[in-house]
Amino acid sequence: MSSIFSKIVAGEISSHKVAENENYLAFLDINPLHEGHTLVIPKKEVDYIFDIPVDDHKDLWAFAREVAHAVGKAIPCKRVGVAVIGLEVPHAHIHLIPINSVQDINFSRPKLTFTQEELANTAEKIRSEF
Amino acid sequence: MSSIFSKIVAGEISSHKVAENENYLAFLDINPLHEGHTLVIPKKEVDYIFDIPVDDHKDLWAFAREVAHAVGKAIPCKRVGVAVIGLEVPHAHIHLIPINSVQDINFSRPKLTFTQEELANTAEKIRSEF
Repeated sequence: MSSIFSKIVAGEISSHKVAENENYLAFLDINPLHEGHTLVIPKKEVDYIFDIPVDDHKDLWAFAREVAHAVGKAIPCKRVGVAVIGLEVPHAHIHLIPINSVQDINFSRPKLTFTQEELANTAEKIRSEF
Repeated sequence: MSSIFSKIVAGEISSHKVAENENYLAFLDINPLHEGHTLVIPKKEVDYIFDIPVDDHKDLWAFAREVAHAVGKAIPCKRVGVAVIGLEVPHAHIHLIPINSVQDINFSRPKLTFTQEELANTAEKIRSEF
């Protein structure tokens, strides 16, 4: 069965995309810890990020680096933090989270809720920074 | 002034090293969230990880990937999680944390305490998995 992220890649589930190339996709987390919280994934479904072959793994992080630069310009924050946990969705994903304090990257904290319009506006702000 | 991590690179502060090459170093976090919690750093002092030039940044993650494989083999866990926060020490560092639940990667949680001997044993276990 396809992961929810593969369905997003295939366009079967809608998302607020912020960047995309042949192999990688970045889109907003719909349960964000902070405005601009973005997920970066390989389009090819692999569960565990460290199982991705080394060259693909390097390119994934290079893509994430570009996305982080755009997120950091679009969203007021001290810096863009990174987390990879991967205990829930079995499709490797990098969380890029604008942070001002360590609490902004605490996954035990209640998630924020934004309307579809707010998410669309945030994605547009980030896309404009590439 | 040199960061505490540059002092570790220079050998002015001791650490429990798990891997090292010309450009990168991995050593145990002395305030770990889980046994085997490892920090991966570039030897060259750069504050913000996404300011590292793209090729170096890719190589840093390739090095972290090798370290994560060794940590995952040495320490019983579901997988090795990743966090980059960087609000405290101004020298980019990747946290590699063996995790069994999302709580294992919650930086708001009290840190664990291990003796120097326990840390030395953990580092040796990880080194033996390369």
